Amino acid sequence: MEDCLFCKIIAGIIPAEKVYEDENFIAFLDIKPVNLGHTLFVPKEHSRNIFDAPDTLLSTAGPVLKKLSRAVKEATKADGITIGWNNEPAGGQLIFHTHIHIMPRFSNDGHVHWKGKEGLTPEEFSTTASSIRSSLL
Amino acid sequence: MEDCLFCKIIAGIIPAEKVYEDENFIAFLDIKPVNLGHTLFVPKEHSRNIFDAPDTLLSTAGPVLKKLSRAVKEATKADGITIGWNNEPAGGQLIFHTHIHIMPRFSNDGHVHWKGKEGLTPEEFSTTASSIRSSLL
Repeated sequence: MEDCLFCKIIAGIIPAEKVYEDENFIAFLDIKPVNLGHTLFVPKEHSRNIFDAPDTLLSTAGPVLKKLSRAVKEATKADGITIGWNNEPAGGQLIFHTHIHIMPRFSNDGHVHWKGKEGLTPEEFSTTASSIRSSLL
Repeated sequence: MEDCLFCKIIAGIIPAEKVYEDENFIAFLDIKPVNLGHTLFVPKEHSRNIFDAPDTLLSTAGPVLKKLSRAVKEATKADGITIGWNNEPAGGQLIFHTHIHIMPRFSNDGHVHWKGKEGLTPEEFSTTASSIRSSLL
């Protein structure tokens, strides 16, 4: 798409530190990494996020994501990998071309885990679960 | 596996607010949700995390993850979805059975986005990219 930063990177119009490329995907370093080696895994075909990404692409993505996660961990000698996928602005998405963050993590690197809510009632859980099940029908 | 909490949930030994189940996967509510509707998407076959999860399972996971993300968003009337996948303790993993977090997000819900590092040099990026490319060979 004309105004899409990642489409421009895919087209080679804007440079990036590319680490992987195949027929369907490209991966390059995030310029504001949580830790060095923080990689963005991006389908070449433009979609906004998970909600409109084609199923065929999502099926192909899994094994490539695993291969990349292993490589990022090995290359950075990381202790773990956090994968993040932000969808829509409220979900943390900043660039509106589907992309998955592969973040090398180190013990005590100061990256704070999300905080869970406590004190919710069993009724709140069961009502919510029921509502999700209905949305799946 | 004998001592695995999620294997026990899958076997029905420990209760959970289940929202989805098929031949390969189960999904249920996280008991310490970022927001209500925070769902865990879990393959039934035991693996530790992305590093040992079978490729066949990872291929099947993508379209189901999309379907669940849409349902969680709709059911909770969320503005977005953050997907999180923690691998190894340093990566934030607490339960050692592969699982993906589907988190409904709302504008200004106070969930803080990860903070990127600034001031890294082009050399640091290119050395790291080169190292990841080598690890992929």
